[in-house]
Amino acid sequence: MNSKLVFAADIGGTTVKLGLFRADGTLLDKWEIPTRTEQDGKFILPDVAASIRERMSRDSITPGQVAGIGIGIPGPVDDRYVAIHGCDNLGWGRVEVKGDMNRLLPEIPNVVAGNDANVAALGEAWLGSGKGRRNSVLFTLGTGVGGGVIVDGHIVPGRNGAAGELGHMLVNPDETVPCGCGKCGCLEQYASATGMARLAREALAACNTPSPLRDLERVTAKDVCDNARSGDPLAAEILDRFADYLARGMSFASCTVDPEVIMVGGGVSRAGDVLLDPVRRYFRKYAYHPCVDTPIIAAALGNDAGIYGCAAMVLGI
Amino acid sequence: MNSKLVFAADIGGTTVKLGLFRADGTLLDKWEIPTRTEQDGKFILPDVAASIRERMSRDSITPGQVAGIGIGIPGPVDDRYVAIHGCDNLGWGRVEVKGDMNRLLPEIPNVVAGNDANVAALGEAWLGSGKGRRNSVLFTLGTGVGGGVIVDGHIVPGRNGAAGELGHMLVNPDETVPCGCGKCGCLEQYASATGMARLAREALAACNTPSPLRDLERVTAKDVCDNARSGDPLAAEILDRFADYLARGMSFASCTVDPEVIMVGGGVSRAGDVLLDPVRRYFRKYAYHPCVDTPIIAAALGNDAGIYGCAAMVLGI
Repeated sequence: MNSKLVFAADIGGTTVKLGLFRADGTLLDKWEIPTRTEQDGKFILPDVAASIRERMSRDSITPGQVAGIGIGIPGPVDDRYVAIHGCDNLGWGRVEVKGDMNRLLPEIPNVVAGNDANVAALGEAWLGSGKGRRNSVLFTLGTGVGGGVIVDGHIVPGRNGAAGELGHMLVNPDETVPCGCGKCGCLEQYASATGMARLAREALAACNTPSPLRDLERVTAKDVCDNARSGDPLAAEILDRFADYLARGMSFASCTVDPEVIMVGGGVSRAGDVLLDPVRRYFRKYAYHPCVDTPIIAAALGNDAGIYGCAAMVLGI
Repeated sequence: MNSKLVFAADIGGTTVKLGLFRADGTLLDKWEIPTRTEQDGKFILPDVAASIRERMSRDSITPGQVAGIGIGIPGPVDDRYVAIHGCDNLGWGRVEVKGDMNRLLPEIPNVVAGNDANVAALGEAWLGSGKGRRNSVLFTLGTGVGGGVIVDGHIVPGRNGAAGELGHMLVNPDETVPCGCGKCGCLEQYASATGMARLAREALAACNTPSPLRDLERVTAKDVCDNARSGDPLAAEILDRFADYLARGMSFASCTVDPEVIMVGGGVSRAGDVLLDPVRRYFRKYAYHPCVDTPIIAAALGNDAGIYGCAAMVLGI
């Protein structure tokens, strides 16, 4: 197996990140192609197949050397590797990822697919901050909140491809503003970049406490984290509310699967310990007592988590 | 394998339920022995071993016919089958269940152990209400609230043996009365027999609405369910609050592992649809939209779920 190669394709709304891995996890090369979403995204998988075939030709890679192709999809994927409800941002309806790739690249029959957030969790579990652990949970804090649950080294996909949809757990029953999903009080409404910006607007409006944040036209999650790090009490207070809600969500995942480690990825997580320290403090408050010491750590692979996870789906971890 | 037999021992605080299964899941016989908790519970495993050996002798069962022994323990069990934090109600400190049983019954080396609530979940997943599904979650509503999470046919034990501790998810951030665990607002404070009784006391004190419940000296969960079924509006209102909190907890487990089915067991669940119908209604409110139709069904095996799960641990499902 160790002489084998694996292709990874992490399909996003604007680009497809591709990777070529050795079976030991070495990333030999990575590159990107545009995601052509026109005409219901009908070019996306053919473009991926063409890019893989081109690389095989360029590097004289034979089909026999390729252990398989792992594909990450920005939508729910069932356990037969079908994008079951489609992917709005690719223009896709229901797409049979494995079947379509098998027709496009019949010489490489082993195709596996997963939801992109779940796949990123697997990448982090394999060679990122969860390395060496077979059970972990990733919270991805970006524009929204996503995530993935890894049990015994495998992605938990869920009946509806919705396992790891950690952003839609109710963390504030008193909320009256609806989340994008239609419910009120979802974790995503607080623990995302947009959520942090909203918490900041609310905090600034609710008091007259001086803060450098008041000089900014539009306060971002990064502004809040930067100012909290510089000692601004109001920024620290905003971060505190953010951390409170995030820790509630983490405690729910902890009571369900009690992971060995909780990883935090996505753009917002780049703030590091100024963000994670209050999260750890609130997690101790909300977690069931045997679990209060579960490590809460920053993800390590950044934007490459997806392609690592694609490779890990093919190889097992 | 089908000619093999399996012994099951579900250890409770007052009795050990034992079972003898065929590998196809047929329960050939079941019996009970008292749980002797004196002297730090040192007699419990020897009593189980003696009972199994006695049955083997009586029925002329040879060690070669026995595929293994499955044991359920009322406390957290790690993946090396060790009761890691002990079991208060057995008098146990840290006990190495597999190692001890191997010394007591060296002729049957295959011993597996699990937390009793997790094991019951596996039993229900194997031959109970989750039959045919490889991914399920059980909520056990008894004096407290426990549960278990089954992924790909296996118990998720968790780093601290605390996976499936669904009773300790925060469902009411406004609660000021502490749960037995020390936190405030845990699911167990509402969705248990004691929780329902408490919701009833609060509802009766908060209004003057006439209700047959007012004639009772002490209102139990069964009284609430019975009167709700008979059309008493106040009982229905109490049940409604119970269902609201339980559905919140279910939605958290759903966002984490998105099971094929959510099973509800324990004494309180005997009320059936009068209890489950409002739970299903609230689940639709709180669950992430792809998951609102996840079946919520009553567990099927009653008190035998544990021994079925013990057998399933040995056999795989």
